[in-house]
Amino acid sequence: MKPIDPATASPEVKAVFDDIKATRKVNELNNFWLHLANEPRMLKHTWESLKAIMGNGALDPLTKELIYVAVSVTNNCEYCMASHSAAARAKGATEAQLNELYAVVGLANMTNRLANAYKVPVDEAFKRD
Amino acid sequence: MKPIDPATASPEVKAVFDDIKATRKVNELNNFWLHLANEPRMLKHTWESLKAIMGNGALDPLTKELIYVAVSVTNNCEYCMASHSAAARAKGATEAQLNELYAVVGLANMTNRLANAYKVPVDEAFKRD
Amino acid sequence: MKPIDPATASPEVKAVFDDIKATRKVNELNNFWLHLANEPRMLKHTWESLKAIMGNGALDPLTKELIYVAVSVTNNCEYCMASHSAAARAKGATEAQLNELYAVVGLANMTNRLANAYKVPVDEAFKRD
Amino acid sequence: MKPIDPATASPEVKAVFDDIKATRKVNELNNFWLHLANEPRMLKHTWESLKAIMGNGALDPLTKELIYVAVSVTNNCEYCMASHSAAARAKGATEAQLNELYAVVGLANMTNRLANAYKVPVDEAFKRD
Amino acid sequence: MKPIDPATASPEVKAVFDDIKATRKVNELNNFWLHLANEPRMLKHTWESLKAIMGNGALDPLTKELIYVAVSVTNNCEYCMASHSAAARAKGATEAQLNELYAVVGLANMTNRLANAYKVPVDEAFKRD
Amino acid sequence: MKPIDPATASPEVKAVFDDIKATRKVNELNNFWLHLANEPRMLKHTWESLKAIMGNGALDPLTKELIYVAVSVTNNCEYCMASHSAAARAKGATEAQLNELYAVVGLANMTNRLANAYKVPVDEAFKRD
Repeated sequence: MKPIDPATASPEVKAVFDDIKATRKVNELNNFWLHLANEPRMLKHTWESLKAIMGNGALDPLTKELIYVAVSVTNNCEYCMASHSAAARAKGATEAQLNELYAVVGLANMTNRLANAYKVPVDEAFKRD
Repeated sequence: MKPIDPATASPEVKAVFDDIKATRKVNELNNFWLHLANEPRMLKHTWESLKAIMGNGALDPLTKELIYVAVSVTNNCEYCMASHSAAARAKGATEAQLNELYAVVGLANMTNRLANAYKVPVDEAFKRD
Repeated sequence: MKPIDPATASPEVKAVFDDIKATRKVNELNNFWLHLANEPRMLKHTWESLKAIMGNGALDPLTKELIYVAVSVTNNCEYCMASHSAAARAKGATEAQLNELYAVVGLANMTNRLANAYKVPVDEAFKRD
Repeated sequence: MKPIDPATASPEVKAVFDDIKATRKVNELNNFWLHLANEPRMLKHTWESLKAIMGNGALDPLTKELIYVAVSVTNNCEYCMASHSAAARAKGATEAQLNELYAVVGLANMTNRLANAYKVPVDEAFKRD
Repeated sequence: MKPIDPATASPEVKAVFDDIKATRKVNELNNFWLHLANEPRMLKHTWESLKAIMGNGALDPLTKELIYVAVSVTNNCEYCMASHSAAARAKGATEAQLNELYAVVGLANMTNRLANAYKVPVDEAFKRD
Repeated sequence: MKPIDPATASPEVKAVFDDIKATRKVNELNNFWLHLANEPRMLKHTWESLKAIMGNGALDPLTKELIYVAVSVTNNCEYCMASHSAAARAKGATEAQLNELYAVVGLANMTNRLANAYKVPVDEAFKRD
């Protein structure tokens, strides 16, 4: 589907677009939001969820961007890898940190399958009430 | 396959077991290593890779455990979720941080599929040489 | 591998091609069938399975196309998203329905991981003999 | 993590719990909500998104439950399969419909990989502006 | 859903059950077939496909069982890992071969994500007309 | 990230590059290694693991390349499909073998989901101590 043109968006969509721009202090919206606006309810819920979770909180914003990249690499989502690694760099991620992130993601995908293959039972020490 | 008993392990396996215990300052090995020892070459390579990457480096060890949990939740590896969330807690992760981690992982898995569904083109601003 | 040219296909492949065209009342085969014909046994079994399941049955054909799109978005199969969303539109899917479908797929991928992360036990009410 | 006890939940969590019970006309909450309440922001956003999308809309509620099951089977989320197939049955899904759903999900997962393996190019007829 | 009792199965289902037993020279059917019989069309198509592909062919039967295990480990399908590793052992797979298989599956899952993360372009030498 | 130019690589990276070329008897490195060299530790560990596992061993090298392709098709890693199917062909894989491989991968991905959907219990005969 085609992206929604902000100039002709419905008031409902326009309100979300304006909030994204004001919150992020940007003049332009990236393609994800313009496309998701085809479903105004999901545009609103996705934006509100991300605004609530990805800013300051228990984890710092950079750590959360790195986690986002890790999931996106695991799922091979090219758009999400591009947008969230750009966000990570904008929040200060160095090339050395991204390289190490990729290493961790690769290793986790490997040991996930080794644990499956050997049907390793969870250690008592790792169990919680 | 059955786990390898450290008491009767080959010298090759025993050397890795000893290095894990010395490096981590523990007396017991968790089930993952005991099972993986059925394939001594992978035991050695997996341990050496994790030792090189998961300790101090460009990212702090706690961040790397959180990334490991994020991949393991995405792939639904129960053993890996249990072992790496235990490791994250041992390195200081709070319950609030783990809850926020789960939120980010959930959101990333959602937006990965929304980006797929709408075939969102990568923004010029996200492209790199 | 290259697609199989219907003009020079083996009788075994040609018989399947002819059945697809007759069943679907089309003159041309889409690329999927032309490529799959490299393995004539799978061409036959895949076509016969789809013919049996995707037509009239317990679920209406449009619902089944939407389910096909949902799986393809989850797995990020670009070809399958394109072909089955075209089939869904041909069977009457509206843009509003496709947008809502994408929303459901996104939400399901999110809550799947939240259920994993919290290791939510299955409620007694959901269990069946 | 342990589920949140509704009797001692925070006002923020309690408000969501009450809305779920009122909207669904039930007296008890299923385990998913009790666990997700460990992260009150995600509890609220997940509930509001599902309330907006899964009820009446462009697609009927039963179709949306079937799509939810399809994604959950693809991802092998046992909890989500159990809860959403129960919801589908409550909305009128017959055993024949569920069996046919499983067939479609199986076939889609197969043809997704066949399309990958043969790198089938998207037909011109499936492309859209 | 409950498995189908062969004693009371429909003639259509019984015919497939008999063919499985005759082809495999066994007296009992494993649980997969008894459950899949809830959808007789998929029972028939799945059995006929597997009969055509998994026996003698371009690849030897053991190699095909190992490939089946590799996919099942990657997808974390516990039933399929159990049934196809049993089939592989019955066809002569040694423990050393299974351990090496698991190693390859682990490494492939790792390098798949490293290739994603670095967006490695396909070498000219690997491209085909 | 950009690939590392062998002419200006660090001694640590150069040593791995030289070992790859000497072991494989090639003059040029493929793009995977040039990109992975951005993280010299993973370059070294990945190469040493693959060198140890993918050569002669319990399984023959061609079988291991086919398993690699099977995982890569399941995960839809385009680069890995291209590089490992080229390696399989170089080790003697015929087109008939590759077609049969794709068939097995498709079927395994289908029956994995059917086993999930029906929650098929593991047969006693498949269980091991």
